[in-house]
Amino acid sequence: MENKIFHHGSLNSFESSISDEEMVEISGATLDFSAMDDVPPLDGETTEEFSLYSGREMNGTSKMMDFLEEPAPGVGTYEDFNTIDWVREKSRDRDRHREIMSKSKESAWALLHSVCDAFSGWLLMLCIGLMAGSIAGLIDISAHWMTDLKEGVCLVGFWFNQEQCCWKSEGIKFDKPTECPEWKSWSQLITGHETEDALSYVLNYFIYVLWALLFAFVAVLLVRVFAPYACGSGIPEIKTILSGFIIRGYLGKWTLIIKTVTLVLAVSSGLSLGKEGPLLHVACCCGNILCHLFTKYRKNEAKRREVLSAAAAAGVSVAFGAPIGGVLFSLEEVSYYFPLKTLWRSFFAALVAAFTLRSINPFGNSRLVLFYVEFHAPWHLLELVPFILLGIFGGLWGAFFIRANIAWCRKRKTTKLGKYPVLEVLLVTAITAILAFPNDYTRISTGELISELFNDCGLLDSSKLCDYVNVFNSTKGDVLPDRPAGKGVYIAMWQLALALILKLVITVFTFGMKVPSGLFIPSMAVGAIVGRMLGVAVEQLAYYHHDWPIFSEWCSLGADCITPGLYAMVGAAACLGGVTRMTVSLVVVMFELTGGLEYIVPLMAAAMTSKWVADAIGREGIYDAHIRLNGYPYLEAKEEFTHKTLAMDVMRPRRSDPALTILTQDCMTVEDVEAIINETTYSGYPVVVSRESQRLVGFVQRRDLIISIDNSLKKQDGIVSTSIIYFTDHCPPLPPTSAPALKLRRILDLSPFTVTDQTPMEIVVDIFRKLGLRQCLVTHNGRLLGIITKKDVLKHIAQMANQDPESILFN
Amino acid sequence: MENKIFHHGSLNSFESSISDEEMVEISGATLDFSAMDDVPPLDGETTEEFSLYSGREMNGTSKMMDFLEEPAPGVGTYEDFNTIDWVREKSRDRDRHREIMSKSKESAWALLHSVCDAFSGWLLMLCIGLMAGSIAGLIDISAHWMTDLKEGVCLVGFWFNQEQCCWKSEGIKFDKPTECPEWKSWSQLITGHETEDALSYVLNYFIYVLWALLFAFVAVLLVRVFAPYACGSGIPEIKTILSGFIIRGYLGKWTLIIKTVTLVLAVSSGLSLGKEGPLLHVACCCGNILCHLFTKYRKNEAKRREVLSAAAAAGVSVAFGAPIGGVLFSLEEVSYYFPLKTLWRSFFAALVAAFTLRSINPFGNSRLVLFYVEFHAPWHLLELVPFILLGIFGGLWGAFFIRANIAWCRKRKTTKLGKYPVLEVLLVTAITAILAFPNDYTRISTGELISELFNDCGLLDSSKLCDYVNVFNSTKGDVLPDRPAGKGVYIAMWQLALALILKLVITVFTFGMKVPSGLFIPSMAVGAIVGRMLGVAVEQLAYYHHDWPIFSEWCSLGADCITPGLYAMVGAAACLGGVTRMTVSLVVVMFELTGGLEYIVPLMAAAMTSKWVADAIGREGIYDAHIRLNGYPYLEAKEEFTHKTLAMDVMRPRRSDPALTILTQDCMTVEDVEAIINETTYSGYPVVVSRESQRLVGFVQRRDLIISIDNSLKKQDGIVSTSIIYFTDHCPPLPPTSAPALKLRRILDLSPFTVTDQTPMEIVVDIFRKLGLRQCLVTHNGRLLGIITKKDVLKHIAQMANQDPESILFN
Repeated sequence: MENKIFHHGSLNSFESSISDEEMVEISGATLDFSAMDDVPPLDGETTEEFSLYSGREMNGTSKMMDFLEEPAPGVGTYEDFNTIDWVREKSRDRDRHREIMSKSKESAWALLHSVCDAFSGWLLMLCIGLMAGSIAGLIDISAHWMTDLKEGVCLVGFWFNQEQCCWKSEGIKFDKPTECPEWKSWSQLITGHETEDALSYVLNYFIYVLWALLFAFVAVLLVRVFAPYACGSGIPEIKTILSGFIIRGYLGKWTLIIKTVTLVLAVSSGLSLGKEGPLLHVACCCGNILCHLFTKYRKNEAKRREVLSAAAAAGVSVAFGAPIGGVLFSLEEVSYYFPLKTLWRSFFAALVAAFTLRSINPFGNSRLVLFYVEFHAPWHLLELVPFILLGIFGGLWGAFFIRANIAWCRKRKTTKLGKYPVLEVLLVTAITAILAFPNDYTRISTGELISELFNDCGLLDSSKLCDYVNVFNSTKGDVLPDRPAGKGVYIAMWQLALALILKLVITVFTFGMKVPSGLFIPSMAVGAIVGRMLGVAVEQLAYYHHDWPIFSEWCSLGADCITPGLYAMVGAAACLGGVTRMTVSLVVVMFELTGGLEYIVPLMAAAMTSKWVADAIGREGIYDAHIRLNGYPYLEAKEEFTHKTLAMDVMRPRRSDPALTILTQDCMTVEDVEAIINETTYSGYPVVVSRESQRLVGFVQRRDLIISIDNSLKKQDGIVSTSIIYFTDHCPPLPPTSAPALKLRRILDLSPFTVTDQTPMEIVVDIFRKLGLRQCLVTHNGRLLGIITKKDVLKHIAQMANQDPESILFN
Repeated sequence: MENKIFHHGSLNSFESSISDEEMVEISGATLDFSAMDDVPPLDGETTEEFSLYSGREMNGTSKMMDFLEEPAPGVGTYEDFNTIDWVREKSRDRDRHREIMSKSKESAWALLHSVCDAFSGWLLMLCIGLMAGSIAGLIDISAHWMTDLKEGVCLVGFWFNQEQCCWKSEGIKFDKPTECPEWKSWSQLITGHETEDALSYVLNYFIYVLWALLFAFVAVLLVRVFAPYACGSGIPEIKTILSGFIIRGYLGKWTLIIKTVTLVLAVSSGLSLGKEGPLLHVACCCGNILCHLFTKYRKNEAKRREVLSAAAAAGVSVAFGAPIGGVLFSLEEVSYYFPLKTLWRSFFAALVAAFTLRSINPFGNSRLVLFYVEFHAPWHLLELVPFILLGIFGGLWGAFFIRANIAWCRKRKTTKLGKYPVLEVLLVTAITAILAFPNDYTRISTGELISELFNDCGLLDSSKLCDYVNVFNSTKGDVLPDRPAGKGVYIAMWQLALALILKLVITVFTFGMKVPSGLFIPSMAVGAIVGRMLGVAVEQLAYYHHDWPIFSEWCSLGADCITPGLYAMVGAAACLGGVTRMTVSLVVVMFELTGGLEYIVPLMAAAMTSKWVADAIGREGIYDAHIRLNGYPYLEAKEEFTHKTLAMDVMRPRRSDPALTILTQDCMTVEDVEAIINETTYSGYPVVVSRESQRLVGFVQRRDLIISIDNSLKKQDGIVSTSIIYFTDHCPPLPPTSAPALKLRRILDLSPFTVTDQTPMEIVVDIFRKLGLRQCLVTHNGRLLGIITKKDVLKHIAQMANQDPESILFN
């Protein structure tokens, strides 16, 4: 027992004291097992301490001894619905990189390989851009055609949409450029009459609803049968996956195919949903599938997530034709780990995608952007007041929408309602179609509606929204002055108000159904309608009361001072901001739509107000709310953890729990370890020097342990259940009668993260976020005390926010 | 001695074993000090272990006992040229925030205070934007005026520059819009003759050089006398400061004033330098000074750095009129810690700054951007070949420039050369002025030169670069076709070639002198000259050989197919990229200059090629190279650490060194600690349970320790040099005869970061970077083994890169 007692009096004896201790222990251990004529070590500390300083020199020999211990296949992989260990993944990639680098000096072939490896990332980005751009083009074209199919068919060729059908027609009317003899509505085709009477209206109405139901039915059926992951917008799940979660199949090829097809169907069915969010999911599927072509990305979960971040940028880039906005969206909203190298590559992917889409030219106007707008009049500082009002509306609507939608989704999840997804989709589609058809502004696709609302009225515009009374005598040059609204504008206002109510209500029920559904376009539509209406109101006010002091200085009669289209745009930005809580990326996307820095200030004012108002009501954006609803283990990077709790309040085991399950480094048999594995469900176990000292050696993953033991039992000679498992660097020579030892140091993580029990949780949360940990061990004065997993952290955060900690479902 | 021996056989006895141990020790300790009838504990472990689980409940009482231990003023501050501890700073800010939040529920006044606190960040951003924009406007106007002053003076008012002078003149010539009777060159003013003969030329030449020398002399004198930190571009130092380094006065008011004044002088003196880099420094000074208005930012080094990142964005924003590019530059190049909240605020600051500058309107054209360009012709895919060639040139020039400049700066630093900075500046100014005057393209300011090179020739352009032979018969509509070059273009090419040589050589010697000097404009000028020359060459080639297969399909006679201005722009981007290694921000800045997505692809191709080529020659950008030259402790966030070393290879003490200097938690006297402080120079000491167990309790900063001990010796009754210092939660009742104990737990960091000795250095580097650590303790199996400081990490990185590890100068 003497070897545990120290009498070092001198102040600087630290090193000598350690060496003394180790030497005694080592000799003890050696003697114990080989010569068996000395006292056995008491607290199980063995030779591993010997490598304290001399470990590096011994690596060579220890490796030679361990050649049998190459990790079994499967070691280092993850199970479904589990969180990855970012640190381990990044280490593995660096190892791989080092290996290639060191080999590259040996031969020209290896050098070429290393160059290829370096450029494979760029090649992959190119492929992703091309693929995402092509698929987006395909979706745009098909959705356009199928949307028109609900109303009629082209006689020249049924594969033309209405616009294409009438492009070359000679019978085209000037005021209605999309009507021509070649395009027949269904009633015209069936009855043969050209005139529009009540009967044909009813017939068209009926067929419209029928098509919508058919599209929706096929969509929901395909999703149900082939790819359940294809529903929704996919952004909450992608955020979770990018933060290091594994959902197998979520980004697979079946999801890609089904999501692409059903997205077209869902959009065409006229439901109040957009294709922008799902496009991001589609682009990420492309990224994931293309990753399989490159070993570097296929085998490494961290590297693959870098690629997915870039793919997300490409997705937004094609959705809006805004590559810079896409990259910033990926950076701000979606990504978790976004090194600067990835920023540059993402930008490349986004650009390639945008230009691929443009060369496909689905909108037929050579424009890159979805809603190209050009405004002519500058804005006045006083207009900031209505813009801020729009911001407030956007914030209120955003917060209301999130609450209502989450409440509805929760109801769907918890009640019987969720058991009839097909019926639900058909019902919502029927209601939407029935209410949408009579109103011009809801019958057209939401994208077209937004386009029209953003539009700045020209002299020759024939739409109702531009039906102003012409007052030509006051025109100066080519500037179109503010004019009194005509009858058409008033009708349009009423129709827009009805459209607004429909959109406000139906979107709440639509988002979250079992079809692909994006939220960008519906929220933008709501904002654009309100914005346009406010814009027209301000315009008319300014026209009729141009003598009011607030107008007199900048909005004289005959001047062009209010642009209702700009109001629509600001409103759209405000509502989108309120729902998604985007900030910089929102403004940049909108900036890329208009292409001028002029209008950034109104957009920014609205986006800021909207975010503040919405945040004051509820902190979470729609995606975060859905993540929480689904219980994904997502550690929000933006929210600061502000509570004053300590690591010891969060760690397991709690005071009343049984002790922490640990392994010892050199005195447990295969049997013992298997018993522990079977009794517990933890995903990993700390390994300590000895139960008594509780001094931490490392951490071993459950999965790695199971695989390695199974593998050894099957393949390695002599390993039986009484074999002792050694996590030490060396195992002492065993007596010939005993079973051979199983050496598992290779699967032991020798650098587990530790914090002290006094560490504030805010720092722990920060460490988990920034390093991407799965778990962290807690020590007190150098002794192992407990463990904190990502799930514990999430539960604690939920608890502190007065939410149900059991809502966190996965590891 | 029995209390150290354990015989727990059961597998799950972890907790009970600990509690047993603690209880024995505690009773031992209690008895030791109070009843004194039991054995003293051997390894110095005392009551602190008692707080293992019950520590939280005891906090209340322990706080009451410790009310005397409020930290002394100065605890938690840093010395000059030291690195801050990000974790501690952020914790302190969260504490402050929590306090305000908890108070806000108490009264309306406190609520208002909390709201003000929340919005103070935005207010600060507004102020920074306004201030940075105003100062930038002032600099632009003054520099413009003083540059013109070298050539002549305005008779209407000497405070007008040439352009303003001639704005309202009636005698203005159409082909030379900046010449008018009111503007007199110095020779005209002195001799009274209007004609330009040899004498007047010589006179003008002489006065030009004289003014240049005067400006440079005043600039260097002001810098030397008042603010030595005002020289250079400031970006390397700002990067270092943002990474957590303290350089007092670097962002102070004197630096701001002197830098603003001398920047104007330096630019006006005609030296080959730009004002863009220094503007960033000026904006950061504004940010730092305005921080003093808000307690939140004044007192917290981490929060202040958030503000400085935003200020840097505002600086670039006003330098180029590119707010989005500015934010991305700050994100990509300058900032270290950039949370997303800051991104949004930076964007706001950048926008305010840009619009402030625009409302000052220093360029007199209502344009936000420095070089506004509008191109008319699209580019062809084949043109990517010359664009990539420009990229290669940019990369080569960038790499060459960095090497040459660093070699020269090192020479200046190490030889006698550096002792005559005034003479050096005067010499370089004289050479620059003498060589620049005879050449039209170097006589004008570099900004104007770049503007002219970017310019797309219109029909009415009168500059030499647009002197093409008119071939009107082949003109189609308003498209200006490619035309044969006239005499003027050939002369311009020669002059540009000479200008290029001058810029290439003189910039190497200029950057790094003791005047404010930016690098953006000179590098862009080099690239723009090469680009324009290549553009004209390709244009002429295409005109004369339009029948060549490569041209025939897209560049027929009379078509407008090559835009030399675009080549100049691409060349400028390539050179800027080669020198600074910017990527996304470079492309976005250039995108904001042109305002069209059209030209992003050429810019991106050139920027990518340039970065690849330059990186292949040398990894570092100019700013990183200067950081290394000056030995600043900057931990590069972009470079991956790829070597396979372990924490134990880097930690101190090394094998041959004396043991680690440690403090024990409850058995050292004030005298002992003071002796350790005097003997060593370490900036902090680990505190352990006992020398023998080496179990880590916490870490204490040297500065905090000195301040606290001094403070206690002065102010606290009875503390003498034999008082025992307790770092424990409780100190045991002492016999009345002994000196009172000094309790210092308040200054002890109870959550020091630890890694195991087996942790790969790549992970350690990652932790240092991401968490912003100052030091990290190294343990082996739960025992304290050593320490790794940021300096150790930097030295190790330098060593691994075959550089001199002693080049890292500061802590």
